[in-house]
Formats: sequence, C-alpha cells, structure tokens
Amino acid sequence: MASKPSIPKGTRDFSPAKVSKRQYIIQTIKANFEKFGFQPIETPSFENSDTLMGKYGEEGDRLIFKILNSGNFFYNKSKIELPESIEELQLNSAEKITLEQRIELNKFTGKISEKALRYDLTVPFARYVVQHQSEIEFPFKRYQIQPVWRADNPQKGRFREFFQCDADVVGSKSLWQEVELVQLYDTVFTSLGLEGVTIKINNRKILSGIAEVIGASDKLIDFTVALDKLDKIGEDGVKKEMIEKGISEDALVKVQPLFSFSGTFADKIAQLSELLSSSEEGMKGVEELKFICDNVAELGLSTAILDLDVTLARGLNYYTGAIFEVAAPKTVAMGSIGGGGRYDDLTGIFGLKNMSGVGISFGLDRIYLVLEELQLFPDTVAATSKALFLNFGDKEALYASQAIQKLRKENIKVELYPDSVKVGKQFQYADKRLIPFAVLVGDQEITSNSYTLKNLVTGEQVSVDFDGLKNALLA
Amino acid sequence: MASKPSIPKGTRDFSPAKVSKRQYIIQTIKANFEKFGFQPIETPSFENSDTLMGKYGEEGDRLIFKILNSGNFFYNKSKIELPESIEELQLNSAEKITLEQRIELNKFTGKISEKALRYDLTVPFARYVVQHQSEIEFPFKRYQIQPVWRADNPQKGRFREFFQCDADVVGSKSLWQEVELVQLYDTVFTSLGLEGVTIKINNRKILSGIAEVIGASDKLIDFTVALDKLDKIGEDGVKKEMIEKGISEDALVKVQPLFSFSGTFADKIAQLSELLSSSEEGMKGVEELKFICDNVAELGLSTAILDLDVTLARGLNYYTGAIFEVAAPKTVAMGSIGGGGRYDDLTGIFGLKNMSGVGISFGLDRIYLVLEELQLFPDTVAATSKALFLNFGDKEALYASQAIQKLRKENIKVELYPDSVKVGKQFQYADKRLIPFAVLVGDQEITSNSYTLKNLVTGEQVSVDFDGLKNALLA
Repeated sequence: MASKPSIPKGTRDFSPAKVSKRQYIIQTIKANFEKFGFQPIETPSFENSDTLMGKYGEEGDRLIFKILNSGNFFYNKSKIELPESIEELQLNSAEKITLEQRIELNKFTGKISEKALRYDLTVPFARYVVQHQSEIEFPFKRYQIQPVWRADNPQKGRFREFFQCDADVVGSKSLWQEVELVQLYDTVFTSLGLEGVTIKINNRKILSGIAEVIGASDKLIDFTVALDKLDKIGEDGVKKEMIEKGISEDALVKVQPLFSFSGTFADKIAQLSELLSSSEEGMKGVEELKFICDNVAELGLSTAILDLDVTLARGLNYYTGAIFEVAAPKTVAMGSIGGGGRYDDLTGIFGLKNMSGVGISFGLDRIYLVLEELQLFPDTVAATSKALFLNFGDKEALYASQAIQKLRKENIKVELYPDSVKVGKQFQYADKRLIPFAVLVGDQEITSNSYTLKNLVTGEQVSVDFDGLKNALLA
Repeated sequence: MASKPSIPKGTRDFSPAKVSKRQYIIQTIKANFEKFGFQPIETPSFENSDTLMGKYGEEGDRLIFKILNSGNFFYNKSKIELPESIEELQLNSAEKITLEQRIELNKFTGKISEKALRYDLTVPFARYVVQHQSEIEFPFKRYQIQPVWRADNPQKGRFREFFQCDADVVGSKSLWQEVELVQLYDTVFTSLGLEGVTIKINNRKILSGIAEVIGASDKLIDFTVALDKLDKIGEDGVKKEMIEKGISEDALVKVQPLFSFSGTFADKIAQLSELLSSSEEGMKGVEELKFICDNVAELGLSTAILDLDVTLARGLNYYTGAIFEVAAPKTVAMGSIGGGGRYDDLTGIFGLKNMSGVGISFGLDRIYLVLEELQLFPDTVAATSKALFLNFGDKEALYASQAIQKLRKENIKVELYPDSVKVGKQFQYADKRLIPFAVLVGDQEITSNSYTLKNLVTGEQVSVDFDGLKNALLA
C-alpha cells in the first residue's frame, strides 16, 4: 500500500486527549442520569431493516446505512436479478430516478440487505420496550448512550457516526417527568461548568391551538418558521412572509399578542391564555406549561434559565405534549445542544398502544465544542501518567518496577520508559506526553533505597524515600 | 406490524442489570489500563474496505460485514451489471461456488460497497498509527475498548457484535513491556475478584526452534495441536497422532522432553535450553522467556499464576515473540478469557516498517460469564436508586421533590414515583426495581417538616428530619 491510509468521509479518529474529554462529558451525563433514577440499556448496532425503514420518512430511509447480507448474499431462496428498469439506468444524479425505478431499487436492496445500522436511539428503544414488555416494570426510566449512523452529507459539526445520549421515561403521563427533565438538564450543564444555558420549552397543544386560531393547521410550520425570524426581520417582515405563505390578515390580527410576546414566564402564560381561550386543546397546553413552569420555579434551577418559546416546533409530527430545546449561552455561536419532548404513542409503531413517553437528548459533539471554546474542561481530564520512571538498564528498571508496582496499588498512574536509551530522549517523551514528574533511579538510589524525583514543570529535584515519593505523587 | 419485533441473529439487547455488570468490568479494565500508562483512542465503526480486506485471510474477508454505498449505490461512474457467471447461479450453499465466480462476486460487491464494519481493533490501530504517526510520541501505549462485528455463525458465547478490550504498545522492543502486560493481567483479574487465573506464556521463537528440531516447519501446527492433547490421550496417543500427520519417529525422539514437560518455570526453561540448544532462534526464545519470567517472579503476582505452555500457538502467523493466553480458574469450564503477544511488524501492512508491537486483549463476554458463575459481581454494581419517594398528589410530590433535589446534590440516587396511583402499586414498583427504601410524605410529614422512611428489606419504618433521611440513605 503506497499511499497513507485514510478513513471514510464523515467519520473520525479520536486521539487520547479527545477520548478523555468525550468520556468526561459522557460520564457526567451518565452519573446524573443515574442520580435521577434512569437505568442504562444497550441495543445492537444493527437492527432488522424492517424495524428501521419507514420510521424516519423518505429522507430518513435514504440516510440509513444498509448492511450487505453476510457471506455470499446470493445464497438466497431464489435467483436475484437486477430489475430491467434499473439495469438500463445510466444515472449520474438522484434527480433522474423515477418513483417506479426507486421502488424497483428498494426491492433489489431488500434482497441483498436485511440489516441496517441504527439511525437514532428512539426507534430501537421503542422496539426494545415492545419486545421486552413482560420483563419491564413501568414506568420505565431508561438511558442509552451509543453511536448512531447517518449517510448524511458530512459538513462542519455533522458526522456520519456520532453518539446520542438519551434519557426517556415510558409508561406515565405525569407532568412531574417534564419537571424532572428540566432539572436534569440544569444539573448536567451545571456539573459540566456550563452555566447560563437556556432551556426553551413549548407544547405541541399550544401550536395546535395557534393553528386553530389562525384557522390553518397546514400553515402551522410556515407560521412558526416566520415568527422565529422576529428578531431578525421585525414584525412587518414576519407578517409579510406569513401573508405570502397564505395566512390571512384576519388570522394575524387574532395572534397579534405573539408579535410582542415577552416578559416573565407567568406573563407569557397569561397572554397565551387569552389568545387561546377559544381552543380547548390550546388551553390544555397552557395548563401543562403552567404546571411545569410553576413547579420548576418552586424548586429552583442552579444555573439554567427556563424560557417559553412558542416558535419551538422541532419534530412537530412526533411530539404531542412538551417540546424542549437547549441553547448554549449566548457568548458561544452554536445551535441547540439538546432537545426532546413528549410523544404519546412511542411504541404504537410496533403494536403496543397507549404508551406515553417523554425524553431528552444531549448533543455530545456540540457540547464538546462549547466546553472547548469556553475552556471548561478540567485539567485533570487527561488520562496521563503522574510520573515517568526513567530507564537506566535492567537492574535499575527492576528497582523502578518494584516502586511502580506499589504506587499503582495506591491508584497512582505511573509508567516505566521501556528502553534504556539516552536520558534526553526519555525526558522528551515525558514532556510530549505532558507527564508532570520524572523519577530517576541509578546505582546510588538503589544503594540508599531512595528515588530522585524531578518536577518537570519547575525543574526542582529532590531525593525521597518511598513514602516521600508516594506522597509527592498523591498530592 | 402484527408480530413482536426482534433483533438480528447473533446480536443482543442488554437490560439495565446486564449493562451495569458489563460497565463494571469495562471500568475496571479501563482504570487499570490507565494506571499502567495506556491512553485511550477510538476509531470509526466502519473503515474503507481496502483497509480491512485481505488482512484476516480468506475466511476473515468472508466474515467482514460490508456496508452498501449510501444513497443510491447505482449512481456511479458507469453502469453496473451483475456478471453473467453470477446471474446464472442458483446457489444454496457456499461449497458450490467456484473461485472464478467468487472473484466475480467480489468485484460486484466492490462496486456496490466501499465500507465495512470493524472486524477487530488491531488492524484499525495499525491504520491509526500510520495515519497519525507525526502526532504520536513513540513508544505509543494505547488502549481501545469498542465493539467489533463478525458475520460468524452465532453459537453459545459467540456473537456477531461483541466488545474487544485491547492494550498495545507500539514502537519498542523492550521485554519490560511483556513483564508489565503479565502484571496488568494479574492486576485486572485481581481487581475483579477473579483469583487464580493462569497466564500461559510461550514464544514464537521457541515454536520455530521446535520446528527446526523436528525438521518440519510445515508440521508445527499439527505438532502443537497433538501435543496439547497430552492430558487427554496420553503420550502414546499424542505420538500416534503426530506420526499420522507425517512427523518422523526420529523427530519425536529429539523432542522427548516435551512429553514429560513439567516442574517449575525454571525447570521448564532448563529443559527447553537443552532441547533447543542447536537452534539459534529457539535459544533466543528461551532467553526472552527467561527474562520475562525472572522479572515477573522478582516482582511477584497478586493472585495469578504464570505458566510456560509450549503448546500455546494462537495467531501463529501473526506473533513473532511472546504469546499469551489467560485461562479462567479450573473450577469454571470456560475457554481462554484473554490473549495476546508480540508482533514485530504491526504497521508494515500500511507501509510503516520496523514498528514492533506487543499487546493483550480481554474477553469481555467470557469474563462476564465467569464472574456470573462464581458470583463475583459486587452487589453495588446495579445502577438502582437508593430510595423511591411515593407520590400522594401534587402538593406532596412538590414537598418530596424538594428533598429529592437536595439529596441528589449529595450524589444520592433517588426518584419520585411519577403518578399518584394506589400505594400498593408504588411499593410493588420499588420492589421489582430492587430499590431498598421508600419515603412517604403526606400532610402530617409536610406539617412537621419530616419524612417517613421505610426500609423495604426489613419493613422497619421511622420518622426522620432531612438530615436523618440523608444520613440513612448515605449509609
């Protein structure tokens, strides 16, 4: 192989420093998930194709990585032929394919591939709940931290393999879950030192209420997308866009309060109550929001801010109650670093009805970038050794190894330079690896049963006995 | 979907109890890897096919899971046709395929698939070292704990997705690494409470020496396989098998000491020295083994036993020096729970010459089974909450949530039952979840600012203030 090897586009190698930082975030999230009573599950990296296909829309189906049947995929019941309509294709772009050809292609793919890589953690979780329903004690609070794969076009911050960190409760409609999930976001981000995140909350029923009021359910997304631009293009700009999208002037009058929607959470709730008074579903949404907001306020948040955002509409077709999204502090330019919501029929797709679920997700990659930018990773995150024992030959290495063995029993990370090469090279190794201490042992140290400990930051060098060595490295 | 959903054969769902136990093993291994100076890396789940193909032999190539090109795999430079020789196949079994047809099939697969799932961690590690050689400070001590995938026929204890836990050092020929790896095995298994494992060691050069002595390098595997049966079929049986395999009677006389190969490590070394005295390479192997054994003996092992096993030949074509394998204590019927060795040219396949590597691996699934069988998992492994706060209504739930919030700040895992349903159902939930305490708060507790704490194991019930609650749950 002549050229340097590489990895597939959209994937990443993680160096020791990066793995340690990612693990620090994951461990923090995990510890807090468990503190809140969530329990871990893990599902296989690949699922049967029919578990995943058709669950994420047509676009999603296309982005699912399919795995070729193992061994010889032609060892099947019957002969597989490429459909004629496909064989005749001389395609260069996606646009040219007809619906009929796509169907034929999908049929062919189905013959040579029966498994696919996990696209998210929610569908496998739903599948898990249905498959194991008899072993599960409901309400089931589960968390799951595993990679997912998407054949998306890679770009800055978007990868083909990335971790999702999800916590969901299934089997209870209690709004106390929503209260706890807000607290969980607050606790995790506070633990990570990331203070001042905004937890945006909305409710699908409020969006339905607004749709009722404007008399156009099918225009709801156009409406929220336009309203979200209020800061950028002003009230007139937003209204202009709404009218262009076919929302009536009459409707705009009815939702006029949304154009000056501000104040405290309670103020906003009051405005919404008035605006949505004619919509039963809308008022239900207001009531739910009020419950969550009141109890969160009563309990208090450590560093996060809870804010009602009526433009929040992520996963609209999916969520049925609360909708969450977390924004990083305004000092960092970064999209959402978390999101979630309630979905009343999580497991219906697999035949188990009436299982309400609510969950949140943490965006590991973006949280990583934010912590990096704000220099919030503790210095202690790196898995580096505390001391490097220099190697001056086999006799000295044995003496060193005896000390190393005892230090490791005290849970101190230490290592021996494996070869007795030039001292300069060994010091350089310690330096590059960011190891803070070097321990030197030669004839003299062996005779006097001592160790020469060198602080590689200050250059200070002292002679110590084993306890002195241990205490210096424990400090 | 009418029928219950399922997962692909050879894959597994892990329930909370299982994830916690697996994480306990992984965390123990990880902590000890780091204590020994190893640093974590992670590589992508899938690699470019040409990184993996041809590295594991023909059988390996067949067992690698290939991923279909994403989107529409027919959008390629040119039209793809199924080769005629394949189209005409009406295959039912692997045996019927000719070499020519296999080549054609591979060509076709290459057109519709360019990526493949990681088959082990060693080849991706070699690829990583070559790709990032300019950033790496050698010797590079890396560990990697990630899943791998193999299209093997699933059977008891063999899965299509499983974790590997590897520690390797690359860039040093020092035998101190071998000494440390033996210590590392000892330390990890001692930490896991699994005492009395046998770390078998051999050396490729000793095997070469034996081959020289018996005058038949090509018969070496037959020889070791037969010799390994000594316990089962006795000396005569072994010799009969060797002669059947074409090893001469003359050769058997020369290696006669191997049929009564026993005693201390030093005894065995002495016997080998005599046996292999005519083989330069064999004597080099003896010397290496002696160095490792002497230094390990000098340092001492906590609970493991180091044993020289001349029949040990795993990965024969791969290893060039030390060969390791770990056997569980004899009370458990289980194959090897770890293995490894030295390979002088790890990165040569990717064009970087003269990089000697040595590494060991831990078999997570088998270690799990052994710990389970010997009941060595600590009770504290499960991620269960310490207490369940019962829910008697929203006012009571708020009072409970205030205590819960404070307890979580003390790192105590507690949770609120989300719904104010019948008390019996709530107790049953705590019971099934193995939560040891229930906390009851009603009007009376709110008025007196107290909590009723019920020990669900003993049934004992006490009234406590917040500090009393905290101390009881911290105990």
